[in-house]
Amino acid sequence: MREGFHGQLTAIRGALGDMTDTAATAMERATVALLGADLTVAEGVSGLATQLDAARRVVEDQTYEVLALQQPVASDLRTMVMAIKVGGDIHRMGTLAQHVAKVAVRRHPGFAVPDELFPLIRKMGDVAVRMAQSAGAVLHSTDAADAGRLSIDDDAMDGLRRALFRTLLDNWSYGVESAIDMALLGRYYERFADHAVAIADGVVYLVTGEMPREPDEKLS
Amino acid sequence: MREGFHGQLTAIRGALGDMTDTAATAMERATVALLGADLTVAEGVSGLATQLDAARRVVEDQTYEVLALQQPVASDLRTMVMAIKVGGDIHRMGTLAQHVAKVAVRRHPGFAVPDELFPLIRKMGDVAVRMAQSAGAVLHSTDAADAGRLSIDDDAMDGLRRALFRTLLDNWSYGVESAIDMALLGRYYERFADHAVAIADGVVYLVTGEMPREPDEKLS
Repeated sequence: MREGFHGQLTAIRGALGDMTDTAATAMERATVALLGADLTVAEGVSGLATQLDAARRVVEDQTYEVLALQQPVASDLRTMVMAIKVGGDIHRMGTLAQHVAKVAVRRHPGFAVPDELFPLIRKMGDVAVRMAQSAGAVLHSTDAADAGRLSIDDDAMDGLRRALFRTLLDNWSYGVESAIDMALLGRYYERFADHAVAIADGVVYLVTGEMPREPDEKLS
Repeated sequence: MREGFHGQLTAIRGALGDMTDTAATAMERATVALLGADLTVAEGVSGLATQLDAARRVVEDQTYEVLALQQPVASDLRTMVMAIKVGGDIHRMGTLAQHVAKVAVRRHPGFAVPDELFPLIRKMGDVAVRMAQSAGAVLHSTDAADAGRLSIDDDAMDGLRRALFRTLLDNWSYGVESAIDMALLGRYYERFADHAVAIADGVVYLVTGEMPREPDEKLS
């Protein structure tokens, strides 16, 4: 029974890791859709977000089952509480990827991102995807070392957001609508990154008993 | 023991209701700070957000204790899972109120909101606050009827957001920086409202066994 129980805990953590990998793929494709003005790829992102929603329900049902039937205590109980929270973070990452894809859809057949910002948005996408992958790795390995990369990438994301806003406020020549799109895109990528950090921090907390930092977004 | 247990559940729900009331106050003051360019009021919002953060930790510790010592099942277990999720929603509402207050601080001693948008932003603030109050009432009463008002106000918030974007895209004459501020403000109020809906829906689900609607934000 107890062996089956720990198998269940490992399975739940593994499922959350797989979901985080799916969130990374969703944001990767959303960025491809955005930069390539590609409707088909954008539609695929909605499919992944729907998939994440279903997967989250399954994990939540499994978590209820463990809580009700196994009545875990101590770190096992904390793992279950972490699973409920992390499920919410991953679900939200899927929605944020959908928001990015929606910008592509709204501007199609035009390109939403002006040439000048193309490299910067691509970098934001790359960093966001890498952070989700790192968070997934932390869930799979529960290795706190994997979480170290998140912190570096989180600083990189902050720098990119600042650079984006500097560009928007310095003789922006693409109009108000485009400025709003870019500001909201910056926010979507940043929030996606915040959720990746929250996931990794939650796992590190479970393993080490110490919260690496306040997982909520820094005020900006 | 069981009587004490149900007292604990009621206390946790009550604490979450009080926290939601505090989130309503935070957003009310943030809007006052924003529209009045009032630094003192803006600083008070940070204090409320910090208070919410501490209250959330207390509720979470109490929830752990109940889960570990009382091993609740069925609807009692669902109440505990709801408490973990709702704690996250309320915490986030405090952060969003802080974001609104920060816009006021950044533009001080100027006024962040152009006169033309003053009534609309005030309405967004009113609706957001009312939604948080309704969500708090649902937590206190667990009366599904209280949740009905949320749905009407949520539609109102959608309409206000659309009106805001129409204004921004129609001969906006206050510059790019102000347009970005207004777009982000619209998003903060809207997300605050989304969390209020998620709270009320969670409670209704507990009581009626039926989820009123997808609690996550509609794609926009």
